[in-house]
Amino acid sequence: MSTLLPDLGTEIVIPVCAGIGIVFSLFQWYLVSRVKVSSERGATSPSNNNKNGYGDCLIEEEEGINDQNVVAKCADIQNAISEGATSFLFTEYQYVGIFMIAFAILIFLFLGSVESFSTKSQPCTYNKEKMCKPALATAIFSTVSFLLGAVTSVISGFLGMKIATYANARTTLEARKGVGKAFIVAFRSGAVMGFLLAANGLLVLYITINLFKLYYGDDWEGLFEAITGYGLGGSSMALFGRVGGGIYTKAADVGADLVGKVERNIPEDDPRNPAVIADNVGDNVGDIAGMGSDLFGSYAESSCAALVVASISSFGIEHDFTSMCYPLLISSMGILVCLITTLFATDFFEIKVVKEIEPALKNQLIISTVLMTIGIAIVTWTCLPSSFTIFNFGTQKVVKNWQLFLCVAVGLWAGLIIGFVTEYYTSNAYSPVQDVADSCRTGAATNVIFGLALGYKSVIIPIFAIAIAIFVSFSFAAMYGIAVAALGMLSTIATGLAIDAYGPISDNAGGIAEMAGMSHLIRERTDALDAAGNTTAAIGKGFAIGSAALVSLALFGAFVSRAAISTVDVLTPQVFIGLIVGGMLPYWFSAMTMKSVGSAALKMVEEVRRQFNTIPGLMEGLAKPDYATCVKISTDASIKEMIPPGALVMLTPLIVGIFFGVETLSGVLAGALVSGVQIAISASNTGGAWDNAKKYIEAGASEHARTLGPKGSEPHKAAVIGDTIGDPLKDTSGPSLNILIKLMAVESLVFAPFFATHGGILFKIF
Amino acid sequence: MSTLLPDLGTEIVIPVCAGIGIVFSLFQWYLVSRVKVSSERGATSPSNNNKNGYGDCLIEEEEGINDQNVVAKCADIQNAISEGATSFLFTEYQYVGIFMIAFAILIFLFLGSVESFSTKSQPCTYNKEKMCKPALATAIFSTVSFLLGAVTSVISGFLGMKIATYANARTTLEARKGVGKAFIVAFRSGAVMGFLLAANGLLVLYITINLFKLYYGDDWEGLFEAITGYGLGGSSMALFGRVGGGIYTKAADVGADLVGKVERNIPEDDPRNPAVIADNVGDNVGDIAGMGSDLFGSYAESSCAALVVASISSFGIEHDFTSMCYPLLISSMGILVCLITTLFATDFFEIKVVKEIEPALKNQLIISTVLMTIGIAIVTWTCLPSSFTIFNFGTQKVVKNWQLFLCVAVGLWAGLIIGFVTEYYTSNAYSPVQDVADSCRTGAATNVIFGLALGYKSVIIPIFAIAIAIFVSFSFAAMYGIAVAALGMLSTIATGLAIDAYGPISDNAGGIAEMAGMSHLIRERTDALDAAGNTTAAIGKGFAIGSAALVSLALFGAFVSRAAISTVDVLTPQVFIGLIVGGMLPYWFSAMTMKSVGSAALKMVEEVRRQFNTIPGLMEGLAKPDYATCVKISTDASIKEMIPPGALVMLTPLIVGIFFGVETLSGVLAGALVSGVQIAISASNTGGAWDNAKKYIEAGASEHARTLGPKGSEPHKAAVIGDTIGDPLKDTSGPSLNILIKLMAVESLVFAPFFATHGGILFKIF
Repeated sequence: MSTLLPDLGTEIVIPVCAGIGIVFSLFQWYLVSRVKVSSERGATSPSNNNKNGYGDCLIEEEEGINDQNVVAKCADIQNAISEGATSFLFTEYQYVGIFMIAFAILIFLFLGSVESFSTKSQPCTYNKEKMCKPALATAIFSTVSFLLGAVTSVISGFLGMKIATYANARTTLEARKGVGKAFIVAFRSGAVMGFLLAANGLLVLYITINLFKLYYGDDWEGLFEAITGYGLGGSSMALFGRVGGGIYTKAADVGADLVGKVERNIPEDDPRNPAVIADNVGDNVGDIAGMGSDLFGSYAESSCAALVVASISSFGIEHDFTSMCYPLLISSMGILVCLITTLFATDFFEIKVVKEIEPALKNQLIISTVLMTIGIAIVTWTCLPSSFTIFNFGTQKVVKNWQLFLCVAVGLWAGLIIGFVTEYYTSNAYSPVQDVADSCRTGAATNVIFGLALGYKSVIIPIFAIAIAIFVSFSFAAMYGIAVAALGMLSTIATGLAIDAYGPISDNAGGIAEMAGMSHLIRERTDALDAAGNTTAAIGKGFAIGSAALVSLALFGAFVSRAAISTVDVLTPQVFIGLIVGGMLPYWFSAMTMKSVGSAALKMVEEVRRQFNTIPGLMEGLAKPDYATCVKISTDASIKEMIPPGALVMLTPLIVGIFFGVETLSGVLAGALVSGVQIAISASNTGGAWDNAKKYIEAGASEHARTLGPKGSEPHKAAVIGDTIGDPLKDTSGPSLNILIKLMAVESLVFAPFFATHGGILFKIF
Repeated sequence: MSTLLPDLGTEIVIPVCAGIGIVFSLFQWYLVSRVKVSSERGATSPSNNNKNGYGDCLIEEEEGINDQNVVAKCADIQNAISEGATSFLFTEYQYVGIFMIAFAILIFLFLGSVESFSTKSQPCTYNKEKMCKPALATAIFSTVSFLLGAVTSVISGFLGMKIATYANARTTLEARKGVGKAFIVAFRSGAVMGFLLAANGLLVLYITINLFKLYYGDDWEGLFEAITGYGLGGSSMALFGRVGGGIYTKAADVGADLVGKVERNIPEDDPRNPAVIADNVGDNVGDIAGMGSDLFGSYAESSCAALVVASISSFGIEHDFTSMCYPLLISSMGILVCLITTLFATDFFEIKVVKEIEPALKNQLIISTVLMTIGIAIVTWTCLPSSFTIFNFGTQKVVKNWQLFLCVAVGLWAGLIIGFVTEYYTSNAYSPVQDVADSCRTGAATNVIFGLALGYKSVIIPIFAIAIAIFVSFSFAAMYGIAVAALGMLSTIATGLAIDAYGPISDNAGGIAEMAGMSHLIRERTDALDAAGNTTAAIGKGFAIGSAALVSLALFGAFVSRAAISTVDVLTPQVFIGLIVGGMLPYWFSAMTMKSVGSAALKMVEEVRRQFNTIPGLMEGLAKPDYATCVKISTDASIKEMIPPGALVMLTPLIVGIFFGVETLSGVLAGALVSGVQIAISASNTGGAWDNAKKYIEAGASEHARTLGPKGSEPHKAAVIGDTIGDPLKDTSGPSLNILIKLMAVESLVFAPFFATHGGILFKIF
């Protein structure tokens, strides 16, 4: 036994850690559920239900706390949002479900055809002396793991949405007691989602591996090749979730703002605005469910990429189960580290004033990174032999355990750097956003020019961070190094998701406060939570993009290994045209998604205008708007419009692989990766900066900000235009690009056996 | 003799064709000069000077034709613009001159140090059995050709500017006689520039080769290696010209529009606007001088890339001078073809009404492409042996002459396709721009979203066209194929420049008409010329980008050959980090240039506002604004702001090559190429589309357009915002990116011997 941790230990440690994560998540849920929101019970039971809860002594203010009307109203709005989100997700899953089944059949047929559906064992791909399971088995098990990944992704997104819509009204109600209370509810709810997703993803993957092992036995090469389907399933669901949810939320948001804020001059989330429910539903299906699926996809893919490379390295060849499970052990440790980190935000310290919110969230990042560095060291020295070999495009490379520690750590710390740079460029506490706000003085045009320039500039340091992470991990441990660097970045996923989900929950809480007609003070508190949430959302996107870059490179490497290509030479026409066309794909994809948001928003604007013009008494608050029609417009538009970009991403690897072969496909993957990362970072930072430049002017916290405001001033109007342009950039096209680059890579990997056998028919003909 | 054309014939044909181009250009100038613009003589000699000229019978209208005041005013304005432009260019050249000398010294030192400044002959790089001239000679001659290229580029830009400022008032005056007359003057002036540049570039290159041959004799390898300095010189001047000129023109334009059109509601080019002269100067230094230098650079570089590869192929090894000069012979044929093409616009047919302008310009592209295809065939079959070998990264590849014909032709036709796609996406005759105009209905935000989506979408077909051109030419004749494909695209450069320069000349003519207080009818005619010019400008940029992509790939290939790298494998950490960092450079560069335009425009806005607020009677037209201060602001800003982006581009290859070595540098070049092309195309098409969407609303030519207008309506205001945002995209950052990708490649090629010997010190240390 070359590792300190015996195989049996590994078999126990992983499910135990996953279990701890789930229990912790349920406990957080329990704490959140103690805030009562009930339209029926609320009328009978007195509000001191709340007061008898916990932290009674900390109640700073009593305003509205006994008002059962407010509680009932909140409950109603929460129900409306929750129902809208649930019904949209069900509709979405129906369509996507059909697609998934069709694609599962395709996987089975394509992979099965590699050896003409033969049931005989074959010599292994990498070790020709050994016999491996037939390609038909890979086809069947890949299909199964694809469906498992898809279902887990659906569950992740759906649960996230449920938790968020469960927490939003509770955050609003707690905001009556003070900003600290509200923060804790919002943050705990985020933690529920974060831990549930991280633990769930780990557990399902672990169980799948163990079940597949029953059939595969010693054939780990085939086993982990089949497991890659899990990543593909998770990621393809995430694509539709991100794109569909992104179009939904931004169509509603842009539509609501263009008529409400710009034309009618009513506040955001005003209940008179017919699109307001759709807007709030959108936050949950786009930012929460989409983000949940996305990060779950990254996590599943990086694990799969690491496992598939490990299976043909000394871990796999020598059947060293503990070392083989190194990626899963890192994730297990991550759950424990994040658990401790969470306590720093909710129990060890307490938020009392607004200005403590952002530091508290930032500290989460720092604490988790520092603790995780120690965690990685523990896992590395207990679970890895001191020296081993890693498959490196045809040769075996000798790697020391401390080198692998550095690979994981460099990914983790690169994530932190990306997070901080993102914060610098998108938080209104620093000069970049303030400069953008200042440029609103001369109108919307300069605001847009400065905002675009800011986004472009914000790419520089993250790219250097990614490049260094790639260089270090690539040099030490080839593609395995890249994969574990990605895992390092994602090891604190529970904390990352917690602070990420916190944002839309606070946003919704603000919306509910406005709609329930609660006092201005409550709204100010939720706005303060939300402003910090904007920055954390941008940080979350930064993580998602950075990890996507590493993940897709790792998958790309695994694909290249599996397709038996030894070099991807830019100086061949096949690769170069792949590279330049691949570099174009993110533009094509963004053109589709942005135009979709634009068109859907135009329809929404017309509907909202129509309602304001035709429903008498709407502007005066005497009549209720028709929320349902707006929800329907968003739903229909997003379902319809998510198909073409989805098809572009899903079909490109298939078409290129079948007609042009694996060399061109390699070029396409590299090109899409290199160009997509840049657009994704710049788009989400530009959007985040515009949003916060607007908030900076609105809040008027400094003398400079006050010279630009107040709300309704010319600079503020210019800022609103920038914010609206940024919406599809930061919430639709930008974050979807992560999935584009990851998904094309993982799909290529899954279909690699097929492409290697039957691909490139065009070049074969000529 | 394996070619039909003997070497002596080649020695005669090339200078003769260049001579024909120059004579034709001078003749066109003579024709333009017959329109008299004189503030002094005009007062004494009667205006029937004009009438006694040519085409008397065709005068459609007499309005204002006898008004000596108008002629004198036009002459004054022309002088002001010309002086402003001349003084700016002199200032710019002073700064750039210092830089050029410093860089020349750097070239000499770096290249001389390759063999420690030894004066002894050395074994050749590619053919070790032969003796070649010492590296010191390459250092000296590279430096000389660098300076020659720089000077030729300066002359090209300067002459272009002189011609344009000579022609603008003449176009205005001819517009009094009808749109056809004005068109001919503007087009002829464009042709003067086009032919002068094409012929001049060819002649200088030809003379340089012949002079260098006196020293180098049989050592063609060294000779053509030294010649690459010519491309570097041309391109580095072009960089400063494009960036400096681009910042100048857009600072003035954005500044003038933001106060004039948006705040004060006065028309474009109104003489009361203090920034109006700076704006018109900008058109000449940015669009004319910058574009001239840029395309000259592309032309010089593609010739150099082709020559350097040819020198180590069978042409060079066997000292077959005619075949060696194939690139120059293609360009010579191009001059003859363009000459015939020009006659179609100016003599064979005649423009009578506005709607004939755009087809006439489009026909120029089609005619020149069709004729040039025949021309290429003639050159190929008379100047090339039927079979020969081309250097292909270490091996010699056998190529047939018909294959090389296809390489050149595919480049030529890819250019035409790019031109047409660009026209489709930027002309307001088609649905994309009309959709963007329509989105102005809901405000500036949707306009920007739709405009960005349009730009992204417009990338798709050009990239496929470029990819096909690359695949065909690369497969047939490796890097030589790419280089001659680029030359094919640029072979009709004289026509391309003519229709390109026509745009800013018409734009200026409109400005002069407005400032001279000429009647509305004249302004409508020049506006019609200008609208067509907007589309041709976009087409010209499309050509520039497409050819830049091919040129830089060819240079990249030559660099790789010279640096003795046999593969550029994406699957090595050195190359991959180069790729991802290279992909980031265009963003960094764009962030700099856009922010520069934004900041300079803000200063301009403040100055213009100050003048409107402090000069009494300015708005009423009673007092003259202080034009000079605005000119100074633009000049200072552009000189100061062009340094950082210039330094980024010039220093990156040096830093990467010295510290990280040739592999990483290869990655950087490929990454910058792949990502830069996409941003450049999307930026210039987005900008062009916004500009024409605004013009579409203003012109109100269709029922749909009239529902959006008139000037001053809400949709029109939204369109103006889009137009302003598009200005830096389409005229500063977008077109500068061409130069970024070309210049980094040619610089790497020139310094390749140094990097191959002394580069990569960081990796050598670790």
